[in-house]
Amino acid sequence: MLIIGELINTSRPAIGEAVARKDRNFLQDIAKNQAEAGADYIDLNCGTQVDMEADLVQWLVEIVLEVCEKPLCIDSPSAATLAVGLKAARPNGRTQMINSISGEKDRYREILPLVNEFGAKVVALCMDDRGVPDTYEDRVGIIRNLMADLRRDGVSDEDIYLDPLIKPVSTNNRFGLDVLKTIGHIRAEYPQVHLTCGLSNISFGLPNRKLVNRYFMIQTIACGMDSFILNPLDKELMGALYVADMLAGNDPYCSRYLKAHRRGYYT
Amino acid sequence: MLIIGELINTSRPAIGEAVARKDRNFLQDIAKNQAEAGADYIDLNCGTQVDMEADLVQWLVEIVLEVCEKPLCIDSPSAATLAVGLKAARPNGRTQMINSISGEKDRYREILPLVNEFGAKVVALCMDDRGVPDTYEDRVGIIRNLMADLRRDGVSDEDIYLDPLIKPVSTNNRFGLDVLKTIGHIRAEYPQVHLTCGLSNISFGLPNRKLVNRYFMIQTIACGMDSFILNPLDKELMGALYVADMLAGNDPYCSRYLKAHRRGYYT
Repeated sequence: MLIIGELINTSRPAIGEAVARKDRNFLQDIAKNQAEAGADYIDLNCGTQVDMEADLVQWLVEIVLEVCEKPLCIDSPSAATLAVGLKAARPNGRTQMINSISGEKDRYREILPLVNEFGAKVVALCMDDRGVPDTYEDRVGIIRNLMADLRRDGVSDEDIYLDPLIKPVSTNNRFGLDVLKTIGHIRAEYPQVHLTCGLSNISFGLPNRKLVNRYFMIQTIACGMDSFILNPLDKELMGALYVADMLAGNDPYCSRYLKAHRRGYYT
Repeated sequence: MLIIGELINTSRPAIGEAVARKDRNFLQDIAKNQAEAGADYIDLNCGTQVDMEADLVQWLVEIVLEVCEKPLCIDSPSAATLAVGLKAARPNGRTQMINSISGEKDRYREILPLVNEFGAKVVALCMDDRGVPDTYEDRVGIIRNLMADLRRDGVSDEDIYLDPLIKPVSTNNRFGLDVLKTIGHIRAEYPQVHLTCGLSNISFGLPNRKLVNRYFMIQTIACGMDSFILNPLDKELMGALYVADMLAGNDPYCSRYLKAHRRGYYT
């Protein structure tokens, strides 16, 4: 299970404001806290600051590297921003992650060279120039094309984190099931490939969103999801993740679960 | 989703005592409350009273029929007890359920005629004379034999509720995953067959058992489980079931989930 800490994203008001005022301590604390809470990667996203995106990402990378040894997940659709972030992250000597490539032709062409140049892991969104697929069959078709392209271009399966792209179940009652089936399909067809996703889309338009997100996370783990982009400071969510991963056979002697229990995750 | 209300079982101290003192009102209330809380079947089990089992089951059937229109799930390994219970239940004119047959040769031979005579649905335990299987492969082997026998003997797939028989994940970290894989296998090989199970075994030996049981229920629904033997008065459990079933594509317009929300299941 690989956790990508999602908190440093300027679309969150508190983060956007902290980045705007260059509040180094505040942002460094969020990076450290996520690492301590179990994040394997720290996501950095300044997508709301289009004009200054690359500069802000560079600054964020530099201040996070000062306090945190975790590798970074540079999160932008822009190849220029990704290149700046990846270059700035080189001093920590870790395998960084690119978030994200997709089946969109221009985006793929621009971002693929960075994957190879930096030897990075890469989140690959299950969409192409027609948008996010509506059906399970279209999803599988896009994944096959994307996997064929990535393999052809020298990216190894273990470095690929396919994101099935979750749509709200409130808009179509098949949208949850389609993702679960897609995960199963990927697990069977590409056993070495990883799977990741954000969770909040599933519950859009419904009440009790955190609970719905959490339960959907538990379901995706049952089907083989092995990474999430989430808030690692959410103890209830992380507690659920430990239980679900234990039940899916990934916690020998239940030791991580029992440790979480002793740390008060379930009180 | 088919819910079998598990509460009327003499192994529960309060029920054992109520049955011993023939407390009709108490037991009738439990039957009614389970039906109102969403139970599709009311399980009746007097397995702790070996000497009087058949008489007590007959009495329970009679008093439950007085107050509750739901069909009954007669729960005993004894063909004699099942026959008495099924006969007593005939007046309600519903399709009752037998809990349970298995791949054990004697048990199969004795109970199969009751399935046919009463046109009952039947819970089929995934075990044979060698006991409960330890591996996924053995489980699938037992299921194939059991399904071949049941089909040969005229039981239609839609009337069969396979119980994969959950073992504690604390004793082997593969035991949860094996069940999840078994469910997926059954869904693919026998699409018309139903799946049911009790939940408490999974968490044996672990802390926070209710939470572990609930999360495992959510996972099994993701893989295709469509029935449970559970306590329908547990609002948190039932609330989780509604969410999980919605996410698995079984709640058009999220209407059952939204109804549960309005009824306060998530507060």
